[in-house]
Amino acid sequence: MIEAIENIVNGRCKKGVRYMKSEKKFITVGDGSGGLLMQSLLKEHILSHLDIKEEELTLLDMDDSGTIGDIAFTTDAYTVKPIFFPGGDIGSLSISGTVNDLSAVGSKPIAISSALILEEGLEISSLEKIIKSMQKTARSADVYIIAGDTKVIERGALEKCIVCTSGIGKRSRFLDGNIEEVRNHREFSGRWIKDSNLGDGDVILINGSIGDHGISIMSKREGIEFESEIKSDTKPLNHLVERILKIGGVTCLKDPTRGGVSNALNEWSEKSHIGIVVDEEKLPIKREVSVACELLGIDPLQIGNEGKMVIACVRERSEEILEELKRAEEEATIIGHATKDIEGVVLNTIVGGKRILETPIGDPIPRIC
Amino acid sequence: MIEAIENIVNGRCKKGVRYMKSEKKFITVGDGSGGLLMQSLLKEHILSHLDIKEEELTLLDMDDSGTIGDIAFTTDAYTVKPIFFPGGDIGSLSISGTVNDLSAVGSKPIAISSALILEEGLEISSLEKIIKSMQKTARSADVYIIAGDTKVIERGALEKCIVCTSGIGKRSRFLDGNIEEVRNHREFSGRWIKDSNLGDGDVILINGSIGDHGISIMSKREGIEFESEIKSDTKPLNHLVERILKIGGVTCLKDPTRGGVSNALNEWSEKSHIGIVVDEEKLPIKREVSVACELLGIDPLQIGNEGKMVIACVRERSEEILEELKRAEEEATIIGHATKDIEGVVLNTIVGGKRILETPIGDPIPRIC
Repeated sequence: MIEAIENIVNGRCKKGVRYMKSEKKFITVGDGSGGLLMQSLLKEHILSHLDIKEEELTLLDMDDSGTIGDIAFTTDAYTVKPIFFPGGDIGSLSISGTVNDLSAVGSKPIAISSALILEEGLEISSLEKIIKSMQKTARSADVYIIAGDTKVIERGALEKCIVCTSGIGKRSRFLDGNIEEVRNHREFSGRWIKDSNLGDGDVILINGSIGDHGISIMSKREGIEFESEIKSDTKPLNHLVERILKIGGVTCLKDPTRGGVSNALNEWSEKSHIGIVVDEEKLPIKREVSVACELLGIDPLQIGNEGKMVIACVRERSEEILEELKRAEEEATIIGHATKDIEGVVLNTIVGGKRILETPIGDPIPRIC
Repeated sequence: MIEAIENIVNGRCKKGVRYMKSEKKFITVGDGSGGLLMQSLLKEHILSHLDIKEEELTLLDMDDSGTIGDIAFTTDAYTVKPIFFPGGDIGSLSISGTVNDLSAVGSKPIAISSALILEEGLEISSLEKIIKSMQKTARSADVYIIAGDTKVIERGALEKCIVCTSGIGKRSRFLDGNIEEVRNHREFSGRWIKDSNLGDGDVILINGSIGDHGISIMSKREGIEFESEIKSDTKPLNHLVERILKIGGVTCLKDPTRGGVSNALNEWSEKSHIGIVVDEEKLPIKREVSVACELLGIDPLQIGNEGKMVIACVRERSEEILEELKRAEEEATIIGHATKDIEGVVLNTIVGGKRILETPIGDPIPRIC
């Protein structure tokens, strides 16, 4: 059984064991990055020790949500620093993140649980602000918070509050029609939207500008001021996802948080065993974000987003889906396509060259979610 | 709407607003106690700020799990200190706790998610030990871990690791039969096992000795040595619950963790608007635990347990249920009964007196789960 797991784990990697082998003895901050370091931790020290049963294969897939029967299930611990930032706070972030992870497998989010870990000394007024923000976000997504827990721990490195949200979703009523539309154009198996669904010729889109969340956190944390305030894009996207599933032909969806768009596309490429070409000139990046990235020496493709969805669909439906996305956010655009002619993720740069877009090793901006 | 919530919240309290009104501005360690301080925090500063919809009334019930349709849903953040203790660790504790909370509403646990918050510097070997322990416990409960998240934060007060588990359960196939058997003997409404189900004459049982978990944590944390090691009772109880639901006539179930048996019984009494009589001489307490409690000046009824279930059932089925419980643990016993003749929870003491068993204010042993 262990062997089978190793095959599955390794099977995801393009060139054998691609994660970084290590003789490590202690957890480091980079292990929580969402990049190769974290993948190594998960694969070498967590998943490899599990005697996985068939029902748990969904865990090994490491998609945005697990699935069992017609239910999608996901969890996230939010350790963002600071807990209040331009455009959002740990409350709106946690609900949006969980709703978006549920949406990314093609489910309709129905219920959310929230476990709060509060640090002694947290202002009650901050707690109340967070709670109200959680509910406002849940309302806007039409989901319900139906279970909770509250713990208090001594003062330390917590940034005063951690929120763990989990969510359950029901298979979307538009999923069967969506899959049927994919099958009208190419072979497709499976009942859910998965990272391993990407097929030759699929068009890749994003619903708006990238990097806003990470840069907003960074500027707030470090006290950096830009000419105009960069706001986090934190928001739930379940209604938008529902509308594009209704159009049909969607093959992959991914919430590009830790590790950014770069990590999301690399996960698709590895799990689907197919190449991806991205056109740099098409990437929607706000001028302020672009300037900030240059200043800080950070690749905007590696920065986490919290109100974005990377979408792949059959070519035949890409224009219709783009139109729907543009209705919500003008910056929505097609950023590339999948092709079996290459391996990995390749960026066609603005200056006319090509650059391999690697899975980030660590995180350029830690603790953004 | 807010008014409706306040009525619901206050409606649970025997004598109007029973929680402690405060002008507090900061979170204190006592707020995570599971006692009156925590109830006050939840009711005054969390629930009262929510504009609760019908789907969320289950959150206000504050039972061990929430329910939506035929699904039970629960979450817990485990901040236990130390993370390894006699008889268990944070891994077995988190899985058992979540399984038991799902069982306590009459559901069959099917899937678990696990969000790990690791502190920089945690030994990889400790992490692996915790992961293996989680899986071993999940296997023994026949549940599957299907979703996860991993975050790393800087060194602080974490005790190196926090585990947040959430779980989903399906309505047990024995629940309809169980409820039918209750209805053979008295009026009963509702589709789930709830804290508000306790009825006049119901017999109250426990499946084994109390206080073991809290004292084991305390002895390990403080380095206190007793003549024989006291082990935590941490274990999943879903199979046991299934067997007693199969017998039928079960009205309430509760996992007496933070706040202990005392808190569990007070919650039943308040939510069901009925009195409870407990016989002190029947309480199953191990000699070592009893000695430790006396030494430390702690009431064993206020200590958290992690492998216990307090059970209420119609009198007609109590002997059969007791027999089933005894098959698993010899110390299982009937500890009292519900009666409309009194208010609140009253302890008939060994020396022949009566003592009101109050909801604990804080926690005699903090951070046991």
